[in-house]
Formats: sequence, C-alpha cells, structure tokens
Amino acid sequence: MEVLMKNEIAIYGKGGIGKSTLSANISAALADSGKRVLQIGCDPKHDSTRLLLNGRKITTILDYIKTTGALDYKKEDILFEGYGSVGCVEAGGPEPGVGCAGRGIITSFELLEQFRVKEEYEITLYDVLGDVVCGGFAVPIRREYADTIFLVTSGEYMAMYAANNILRGIKNYENGKYRVAGLLYNSRNIEDEDRKVYAFAAAVGLPVCAKIPRSNVFAQAERKNITVVELISRKMKLNKGADIQDEEQKIYDIFKSLSRNIIDGVPMYEANPLSDDELEAVIYQTVKADYKKPFSKCDSETKE
Amino acid sequence: MEVLMKNEIAIYGKGGIGKSTLSANISAALADSGKRVLQIGCDPKHDSTRLLLNGRKITTILDYIKTTGALDYKKEDILFEGYGSVGCVEAGGPEPGVGCAGRGIITSFELLEQFRVKEEYEITLYDVLGDVVCGGFAVPIRREYADTIFLVTSGEYMAMYAANNILRGIKNYENGKYRVAGLLYNSRNIEDEDRKVYAFAAAVGLPVCAKIPRSNVFAQAERKNITVVELISRKMKLNKGADIQDEEQKIYDIFKSLSRNIIDGVPMYEANPLSDDELEAVIYQTVKADYKKPFSKCDSETKE
Ligand SMILES: Nc1ncnc2c1ncn2[C@@H]1O[C@H](COP(=O)(O)OP(=O)(O)O)[C@@H](O)[C@H]1O
Ligand SMILES: Nc1ncnc2c1ncn2[C@@H]1O[C@H](COP(=O)(O)OP(=O)(O)O)[C@@H](O)[C@H]1O
Ligand code: SF4
Ligand code: SF4
Ligand SMILES: [Mg+2]
Ligand SMILES: [Mg+2]
Repeated sequence: MEVLMKNEIAIYGKGGIGKSTLSANISAALADSGKRVLQIGCDPKHDSTRLLLNGRKITTILDYIKTTGALDYKKEDILFEGYGSVGCVEAGGPEPGVGCAGRGIITSFELLEQFRVKEEYEITLYDVLGDVVCGGFAVPIRREYADTIFLVTSGEYMAMYAANNILRGIKNYENGKYRVAGLLYNSRNIEDEDRKVYAFAAAVGLPVCAKIPRSNVFAQAERKNITVVELISRKMKLNKGADIQDEEQKIYDIFKSLSRNIIDGVPMYEANPLSDDELEAVIYQTVKADYKKPFSKCDSETKE
Repeated sequence: MEVLMKNEIAIYGKGGIGKSTLSANISAALADSGKRVLQIGCDPKHDSTRLLLNGRKITTILDYIKTTGALDYKKEDILFEGYGSVGCVEAGGPEPGVGCAGRGIITSFELLEQFRVKEEYEITLYDVLGDVVCGGFAVPIRREYADTIFLVTSGEYMAMYAANNILRGIKNYENGKYRVAGLLYNSRNIEDEDRKVYAFAAAVGLPVCAKIPRSNVFAQAERKNITVVELISRKMKLNKGADIQDEEQKIYDIFKSLSRNIIDGVPMYEANPLSDDELEAVIYQTVKADYKKPFSKCDSETKE
C-alpha cells in the first residue's frame, strides 16, 4: 500500500454501469473544490461529458481527425469547457465492424499530447469502457497514464465480471506500482446486493470507496442535463439550499467526500483478480469470504 | 427481403443479455430435430457451450494454441461433443490488457478451417459478444461467415444500444446481401419493456423472432447444467412428461418453434441502424414509432 498525490484518475466499468454519471459528478465536485479538472471520455458511446456540458454534444477526436487535415488541427475544436471550467474531451469510437476502438483511444491520447492539454489541468479523469479489456482499452492503464484507478460496479454478476477482468488487465501492467484505489459501488437495488459487492471487495482486497444509492435524483438532474453536484450548487445559490431534499444532500455529500479523499490522496492497492471459478463462488456464496479489512480512509463505507 | 436456406447463424448481443443461454437452447432444439449442429463461443467469457456440456469446462482455442506447438494440434483437443451430439468449441479470450479479443476470434476461425470442422455439421451457430463491435468481433459477419444474424436484446437501453451498434457493423459488410433475421427479445421484466422493444424493432424494421420470458426455469435448468430443452426432453423420456410445468412447456415450445423456423428458412432483412438520437427518441418515446409491420413467419410474436 502506498499513499500518493494523485492526478490521473481512471474510472473503469462495464457499459451502462454509471461510469459517466459518476465521473461527471466527481469532476464537478473536484471543480467545486477549486481544482482544474480535465475529463476524457474513452467510451465509443461518447456521452461521458454530457452532464458537464448541459447536454451539448461535442465533436469526438476520432470524428475530428477523420474530417480534418493534420495541419488544421485546433485544440478548441475538440476541447470544450463545462461546469466549473472542467475541460471536456470525447475520444469517440471507430466505425462499427471496421476499426479498433482501442486504437481510437491511442490516437486520441496522441493528439491530446500534441496539444499539451493535460498540462493546463491539475487532475485528469479518464472515463473508460471496461467490457472488453483488450490492449486498446487498457491504454489509460498502460503507458503509466492513470495513477489512480476506480472500478465502478453494482452487485450484478456481469458488472463484477467486468471489474474483475479490468483487475486482470491492471495486473499485467503493474510492475510493482500499485494503482487501484478501490471500488465505486453504484447500487442497482438487486437482491442481496450489499453482500455480493462487499464479498467481492473483500475477495479482491479492495475498499469500497463510495456507495452510491440507486436514486431518482440522478434522473432528475439528467433531465436538466446537469450533475447532481451542479443541481445542489444551484439550489444553494438560488435560495440558500432551502429546497434541497435529504436524498439529494446525501448524494451530494458522497461525491464531496470522495473528491476530498481524492485531493488528500487515497491509499493504493495491488490488483488481485479472482479466477472465474473464484468469482462465481464469491458471488453465489458457495464459499465464505472475509468481510473485515484493515481500515483505510477510502473504505469507511464498508463499515456501515 | 430474401428467403434462403440458412446454415451459419450468428447470435449477437451485449454481455450478460442471455446469448449463450439462448444459443445453447437453440442448438439443442435443432439437434432434437435431427440436425448436426456446431456451436462456437466467440466471447472471452468462454461459457457459451456450458449448458450443452453439463457444465464441463473445455480448453479454449486461444489457450490451446498458446500452450501447444502447431505440429501437435489435434481436433479433439478443442472440439467436444455435447447434448444431441452438438459440436462445442470455445474461442476464448486474450490476456486482458494485452491482446486483442477480435484477433483471437480470427485465429480460432483459422484453426477450425484447418481442421475442416464445419464440414461435419449442417448448421453452425456463433455466439458472439457485441459490446464492442470492433473489427475483431465483427469477424463472423465479415468474410461472409454468418448468413443469418439474430440480435438478442431486452428492453434495457444498453441492450438496444449494443444491438443497434451491431446493426451498424453489419451494414458495413452488407454488400447488398441481407443477413439479419431479427431480434430475440429476452425479457428482463423492466418497466414498459414490451413497448420499448417493439418500438425499437419497428424503428429498425426487424421482426421479433422470439420473445423469451424472464423465468426461473432457466435458473433451474442451469443448476442442473443443462438447457431447458434438455430438461424437457429428459422429463418426456422419464415419465412421458407428466411432471412438465406449463412454464417449462411454454419456453420449450418457443425454442422448438424458433428452431423449426430456422430449418425452414427465415426471411432476411436489411440492417437499418438508428442514429444515437433516434435510438434515444424511440426508447424514451419522444417520437412515435409505427408498430405495424408486414407479416413474416418470424415476427408472429409481435402480434400478441
Ligand atoms: N445510482 C444511480 N441511480 C439511478 N440511476 C443511475 C445511477 N447511476 C447511473 N444511473 C443512470 O444509468 C444510466 C447509465 O449511466 P452512465 O453513466 O451513462 O453509464 P456508463 O457511462 O457506465 O455507460 C444513466 O441514465 C444514469 O442516469
Ligand atoms: N429469459 C431468462 N430468464 C431468466 N434468466 C435468464 C434468461 N436469459 C438468461 N438468463 C440468465 O442470465 C445469465 C446470463 O446469461 P448468458 O446466456 O450467460 O448471457 P451472455 O451469454 O449474453 O453473456 C445466466 O445466468 C442465465 O441463466
Ligand atoms: S484492441 Fe480492443 S478495441 Fe482494438 S480491435 Fe482489439 S478488441 Fe477492439
Ligand atoms: S478485440 Fe479489441 S483490439 Fe481487437 S479489434 Fe476488437 S477492439 Fe480492437
Ligand atoms: Mg459512459
Ligand atoms: Mg455468453
């Protein structure tokens, strides 16, 4: 375990699990704390930054370089400013069936380096699809880009299957430097969900760094094309927060506390993926897992 | 629209949607009708054929070629016989973060061709992950392998997002030859699910070739490591089916009828993917979709 000042965060998880929603809320909370944040969407779905940009769709890097000559590249064509001055970039995806999505991420990173975009920001957050952890999607973990990795999961088998697979990918690039901060448990309200997620967390030796409830508050904010963090900030400004509901406050506090932990620096853990059989055994409770783990700033949620 | 005798079927869909469960049941039903069937799992999860093999785990092609010299390759090391003499093969996946899953599928197909495996079977069924439709996973659609494509979807946004993405991939390789048979609607019992799936089907101009209810019957069969089709066949043999429950019978009949349609030949449709905005509009009902479509053998389910 090492504690380091972090500045390149990767949020990995399976498609639809809530990566972009959580990423945008974390970016917004970090920005509220005065940090200059860059969020890079690395999912062909290219909607990572929508809640920071009030729903505005921006040109993806892959679309841009397809239609623009290299001499005409301009940073402002692919870098947009969102809530709290968060820098917003979407890598985009290749033509389905033809290109390689992973290759697209590599190309995007090269262009961002050419523009020296990251130098303008204190914290970079990568929002990365983790269904297929081929070489391509592993780019933010390879090449030492990300130094702090969060895995988003619910209690669904496929979500933990994907998270476990990402741990395998991370392990392949670890070289003795631990980079996993822990799990972000995004509830789906399925049966026995707490047990499953905490059993998985214990089995892979990772803290649950935040437990986010399944809540309509996200849909309400999404309909306004904003993050929950922005929603609450607005309500604070408008009438001193008199109309903030308990559930909204609770969710806001989760992101605030997580972002504070990120700024302070969270402990890093080794990637210890399970075998497929172990994973099934843990989730379907055919083996007993030990829920107790050493305390760390990041796993307070496991103690409820 | 063209009607053709089909012999290479690809079942595409997002991870966890039910591809392998449906594939194994379809293979079993085809085998019960006397067809020689080969099922090829093209998902790094490599559990496509588990229900045909009573849970037995077989060596994946990618693992095999990693550990075996080319001169020692033997067909029987990677081809196994399951229920109803269905030939079972798992392509497997690369080391996470390093290799390319798509490349693995290509390698697997080359080995199968070398052994002339497909020639021993009348129908080949590919069970393919469709979360990332990069060049690799599109292999069964490219190179003219599959001539009949089914897309598995539920009413969940991500499931239809993936199905629509697969249609984009198919469109890129269509060359005037239509190859999409339609949707296999695997229910998740989510809100407003029928409306969402049939609206999507209408919008992309595809029939719903089968609607499979969400049912415990699948879990019951899975616990025995068999397909529902095998479960019913066993009950028929044991005591003339006296203990077959209504729901089991219903599910069995769905697979029988689908397999009969496949044997008779189903109509093929053009791939007409939606744009991302159209997809959202259709699913979230911001536009009206027309539910009525011309009758075809395959879309009887849309008429309930
Ligand atoms: N905790 C939650 N409660 C309710 N809805 C959620 C929650 N997390 C995510 N969602 C919703 O799930 C959908 C998918 O989330 P998204 O962040 O786009 O996933 P991903 O980026 O992983 O594909 C969005 O509509 C989002 O509002
Ligand atoms: N219609 C259904 N009703 C209930 N459970 C289902 C149904 N279809 C699939 N399942 C279950 O969902 C899980 C995932 O299915 P699987 O076929 O492995 O998905 P995929 O191959 O698409 O990843 C399995 O446990 C399976 O039994
Ligand atoms: S590296 Fe990943 S994105 Fe690229 S082709 Fe391979 S599987 Fe697809
Ligand atoms: S499996 Fe990965 S590396 Fe291979 S073609 Fe697909 S996205 Fe690219
Ligand atoms: Mg996303
Ligand atoms: Mg499968």
